[in-house]
Amino acid sequence: MAAAEETDCENVPWGEVTPEAARKLLVAAVEAFAERGYHATTTRDIAGRAGMSPAALYIHYKTKEELLHRISRIGHERALEVLETASGRGGTPGERLAEAVSSFVRWHAGRHDTARVVQYELDALSDEHRAEIVALRRRSDAVVRGILREGVESGEFDVPDVPGTTLAVLSLCIDVARWFNVQGRRTPEEVGALYADLVLRMVSARR
Amino acid sequence: MAAAEETDCENVPWGEVTPEAARKLLVAAVEAFAERGYHATTTRDIAGRAGMSPAALYIHYKTKEELLHRISRIGHERALEVLETASGRGGTPGERLAEAVSSFVRWHAGRHDTARVVQYELDALSDEHRAEIVALRRRSDAVVRGILREGVESGEFDVPDVPGTTLAVLSLCIDVARWFNVQGRRTPEEVGALYADLVLRMVSARR
Repeated sequence: MAAAEETDCENVPWGEVTPEAARKLLVAAVEAFAERGYHATTTRDIAGRAGMSPAALYIHYKTKEELLHRISRIGHERALEVLETASGRGGTPGERLAEAVSSFVRWHAGRHDTARVVQYELDALSDEHRAEIVALRRRSDAVVRGILREGVESGEFDVPDVPGTTLAVLSLCIDVARWFNVQGRRTPEEVGALYADLVLRMVSARR
Repeated sequence: MAAAEETDCENVPWGEVTPEAARKLLVAAVEAFAERGYHATTTRDIAGRAGMSPAALYIHYKTKEELLHRISRIGHERALEVLETASGRGGTPGERLAEAVSSFVRWHAGRHDTARVVQYELDALSDEHRAEIVALRRRSDAVVRGILREGVESGEFDVPDVPGTTLAVLSLCIDVARWFNVQGRRTPEEVGALYADLVLRMVSARR
């Protein structure tokens, strides 16, 4: 219990997952799925990485799919929260779009292992779980689409195809999880600033 | 031999791979890697999908990694060819950039299974093979960077960060392989046209 009480949700990865054993198993699963893919990872691999027995894993997660679902749901909820926070701030549509893009990029760069699992292993979810995740993705999509629509209505943006441009904006940010390298030349903040500028150009924002 | 002779390189997927048994195995490997991931696929799975025995597979490919390397090299060579063809056409930098983006997008949408394997399984290649593929990727990067530089020099484009914008343009096109769905609302041609327009906006092309 002491370990769980010391967990700081903001600083410990997956701090929202308790107890500590469940959190450790989930961190191990993210690493294993990101490295080898969901289908190549066994629950035995995950337990081993977390320094536990397979029996200890089954106390917290009945199946490997339950782990993926938990990771995917929390990951999507966080990504949606990032977009909603940016969109809910005051300012012009251009300011809010720039903030949404830069924070979404920082999330995909800073948590690229999680983002890869969340973005590339959707097909491995059960039908019911996939439907739940697709609904979360539609909400993320709606946040960006809403900012674009507002900008078009106010005359600040020029966007002939709002749904297509929304798709492209999110896609550009999501692909950061594929190529981002912590040893690379650019920090998550630098990529976020560059991409915010490129997206404002995509919507022909008056600046 | 009759089957191999009938193979039309333009219309048969992977028509450049001969003999026919080697081509069938490679097609089966692309499907299996795209569906379950490289690490979760065995050479036995691949042989089974192609309707052959594991022993028949070893006649053509010594290891599973040799199959991935072959897929990755041909895939990268094709993608580079698509960009070089577009860039080599006459016209302004804006026309050539639009053609490069729309044809690169059509390739990633039309051959999304291959593109996913080629883009997401780089880490599974041997060091030597990965170095070879990275060199091909640098050449693709150089084609797009070259068009951007020309456009900047002629005053047609306004691009403060040419390497960063090159990365973003390629990344936007590559991610089409993740989300493109043949049952979806947009054809590869429609996505290509939309993305060409968005990229011309990213470089603030005078039109």
